[in-house]
Order: sequence, then C-alpha cells, then structure tokens
Amino acid sequence: MTYELFYWDEIPGRGEFVRLALEEAGADYVDVVRGSEAQGRGISAMFEIMQSQTAPFIPFAPPFLRDGELVIAHVANILFYLAPRLGLAPKEEGLRFSANGLQLTIADLVAEIHDCHHPISVELYYEDQMDAARARAQSFLQHRLSKFLTYFERILRQNPAGPAFCVGSSLSYVDLSVFHFIEGLRYSFPKAMEKQEPAIPHLIALHDAVARRPHIKSYLASGRRLSFNEAGIFRYYPELDLN
Amino acid sequence: MTYELFYWDEIPGRGEFVRLALEEAGADYVDVVRGSEAQGRGISAMFEIMQSQTAPFIPFAPPFLRDGELVIAHVANILFYLAPRLGLAPKEEGLRFSANGLQLTIADLVAEIHDCHHPISVELYYEDQMDAARARAQSFLQHRLSKFLTYFERILRQNPAGPAFCVGSSLSYVDLSVFHFIEGLRYSFPKAMEKQEPAIPHLIALHDAVARRPHIKSYLASGRRLSFNEAGIFRYYPELDLN
Repeated sequence: MTYELFYWDEIPGRGEFVRLALEEAGADYVDVVRGSEAQGRGISAMFEIMQSQTAPFIPFAPPFLRDGELVIAHVANILFYLAPRLGLAPKEEGLRFSANGLQLTIADLVAEIHDCHHPISVELYYEDQMDAARARAQSFLQHRLSKFLTYFERILRQNPAGPAFCVGSSLSYVDLSVFHFIEGLRYSFPKAMEKQEPAIPHLIALHDAVARRPHIKSYLASGRRLSFNEAGIFRYYPELDLN
Repeated sequence: MTYELFYWDEIPGRGEFVRLALEEAGADYVDVVRGSEAQGRGISAMFEIMQSQTAPFIPFAPPFLRDGELVIAHVANILFYLAPRLGLAPKEEGLRFSANGLQLTIADLVAEIHDCHHPISVELYYEDQMDAARARAQSFLQHRLSKFLTYFERILRQNPAGPAFCVGSSLSYVDLSVFHFIEGLRYSFPKAMEKQEPAIPHLIALHDAVARRPHIKSYLASGRRLSFNEAGIFRYYPELDLN
C-alpha cells in the first residue's frame, strides 16, 4: 500500500519530519500535493479532504497522512503511527512513549521558531509584524534556543543505551527530526547557532550521522528534497538573527 | 498502582486535561506538587525529576505523569497512554489515532490562547507586552477562534456514530478536553464566546453533558478543582476580549 502524504508544496515545513522517516525507510509514498491534478493529485486533493462536509475526523491542518481508509493528522501522531511499520520505533512500549514525548517537544520548538517571524498573526505578512518579530526572536535566542538545545543534548547524554541516538540503541524517527531542526536552525539563525554548537556536541554528532546515512544522503541530493525559503517555517531574516 | 501527576500548583493549566480523565475514571492518583514536602511531594519532587543529570528521557516541561518507572510528558502523550487503561479510549486502533489528532489540535488551540497574553516572551510579564497582546488577541478572536470552534463542531456533526461524542459512540478523553477548553474560553473571552456559541450547538451540548456526569460533577465541586486565574493559561483580561 502506498502511503499518501498531504502537505503544502514548495516548503519543507512540518511535512519534512514525515518525509525523512518515509525516505529513511525506503517506504512507498507519494507527496500528493506535488502530483498533477490530472492524476487526481495536487492541492485540490488536499482541500477536498479538509473541506469535506461528510467525512469523519477531517484534519484541522496539514500535514496529514492517508493509509487506505485512515487519515492521520499532526506530525507526532503520523510518526507514532508510521514508525513501527517503518522499523523506526523503539521496540519497548515504554520507550515509544518517551519517543513521542520528545517528538512533541520538537513540535513545540518548531512552533516557537515559527512564531519568531509571526508573533502576532498568521493572517499578516512578516513585514506587517516586524517590530514584534524582532522582540520575539530576541527573546527566543536569549532564553529559549539554548534551553531546547541543551535539553536535547541531555537526552542524548542521559540515554542509558549511549549518546548515539535519542531513544534506545538504534535509529528512531526522533533522531531524523533532530537532524531536521538542526538544519532548520542553521538556516534561520546562523550566527546564533554558531555560538550554540560548541555546547551541544552529541546533537551535532547525531545530525552528522543522520546526514551520512545512505537513504538520507541520496534523498537530500534528490529533487524530492525542498529547500528552505521565506515562505516556510524556518526562514532566514538577518534582522532576526544575533547581530 | 497510584498514578503520579506532576504539574504546577495553583493553576488548572495543561494539567487539567489529565486530571479530568483521571477523575472521570475514578483513578487512584496524586497531584504530586500539591502534596507536602514532608511526604516527599511538593514542587521539589517535580524539579528533582526535571533537573536530574542521570535519569533517562527527562521531561522538558510539566505536566508529566509517572506510572511506576515510566515518566511520560506532554498532555496528548499522557492521555494516549492513560486512556486505554482508564476506559476512555476508542476501542478501534484507527480511532485512537483520530482521537490523538484531535487532542493535538486542542494542544495547538491552547498554545494560541496562551500566546494571546504572552505573544513576545514567556520571560516577560503580561504587563510588559500588552500592546502586542492586544494585537494578537484581536487576530485570534477575528480569525482563529471561530476556525477552531467550527472545526470541532464539524467533528461532532460528521462523527459517523452521531454528534454526542467526538470519536466513536462513547465518552473519550477528547470529550473531556472539549469541556475544558469551552470552560476556559468562556472565562477568558466571555463576550467573544457569547457571540460564537449559537454557531456551535453540538459542542455546547457536549460540554453540558460532560458537566452533568456524576464523577465530573463531584470533582468540579471539590477542592481538587482549581479555579481559573491570571497566572494560568486561560486568563481574563477584559482589554483582550471583544469590546
């Protein structure tokens, strides 16, 4: 069965956390919105599900995944569902809840990163909320960024199975998500990250190890990988970075 | 085994979503931070876990739940874990992922409500970010509140088992969470909610049905139920409500 991923085209965004798991596993999937309308794909296929006036449990927002009849929304929920099927979940039940808790902390980090450029309203352009964005980004870089990064560094350092992976002794989807938020933070806040990185050696080692994995490496070099840009969650506005 | 819930004292906050499930089920639990230091409880018991330099998978923030050796963080994750044990989860596996997706949408709503009074920084007082808070709350009330409420109204209306519950044909933890966010929104934005409520009859009926359940009714009348106040997530600042 082909997994169908629904997410906005042209940005890696939150969909990327799901793509990385599917790519690492070599799973059979389609990025529906990036397909052609002629084949029943494209953006209208996504809106058809979201706007249905009859379907049960319609998603509030993308990304969502369709697996046969089942439609699953929210990154952490999709990954919790997919990971055992893709061989990317810890074996032990308790560790699966630890992994899910970490993934939800990543979701919170991503929301805070988004709100650095949109602190007032998602209905307004960045340019219409720049003063508030500067204040929010400044507070994020001063207080929150190191709090999140050193937290994940501790997670690695205190993993009873060793610091190579977040949970257990083999790769899980959480490790792929760590790779992606490090990539995104380097894109959005290069100066701030340059200052942070010496304090998080295990996180950087994990990031580098993920980048070297054969499936991830070939995915990153492919056309399926979208670049960061100023329409997504991770945006580069020099005025929001450290000066 | 007694479940141990860890959350800030004196506010209902995010911990309340977990408390409502434990109370409805009549589960054996302690609200650890509200206990006495002499019994090994209180705030220091919570910080001891969060600040441990050796324990695995320490939580980033409360609430978290301890069940024996296992420590589980994030509201939706705690509820996903607890609900089958409390008889508050849908029976079918697919519906459990639908429920989790809805709970995560509630988490996003709660984060947006929080950011109405703290749009710039959690490190600053509300009084130091009032202008941004007014702008954020105005946008929330104009665009987001009705989007979330009518979404959940559709979830009820389009539930194949009927509009009495969010998922399936019996009470789940998601229904208890709906009750709580309606309570919180009525406290924070009474004028805005007065305007919204005629459009969400199924949600209001669900709220009222939850309030009438014997365990919930006696919990709400007990000293275990904390009042909303201006230290929590749901705060009442008249200047942020509709005028």
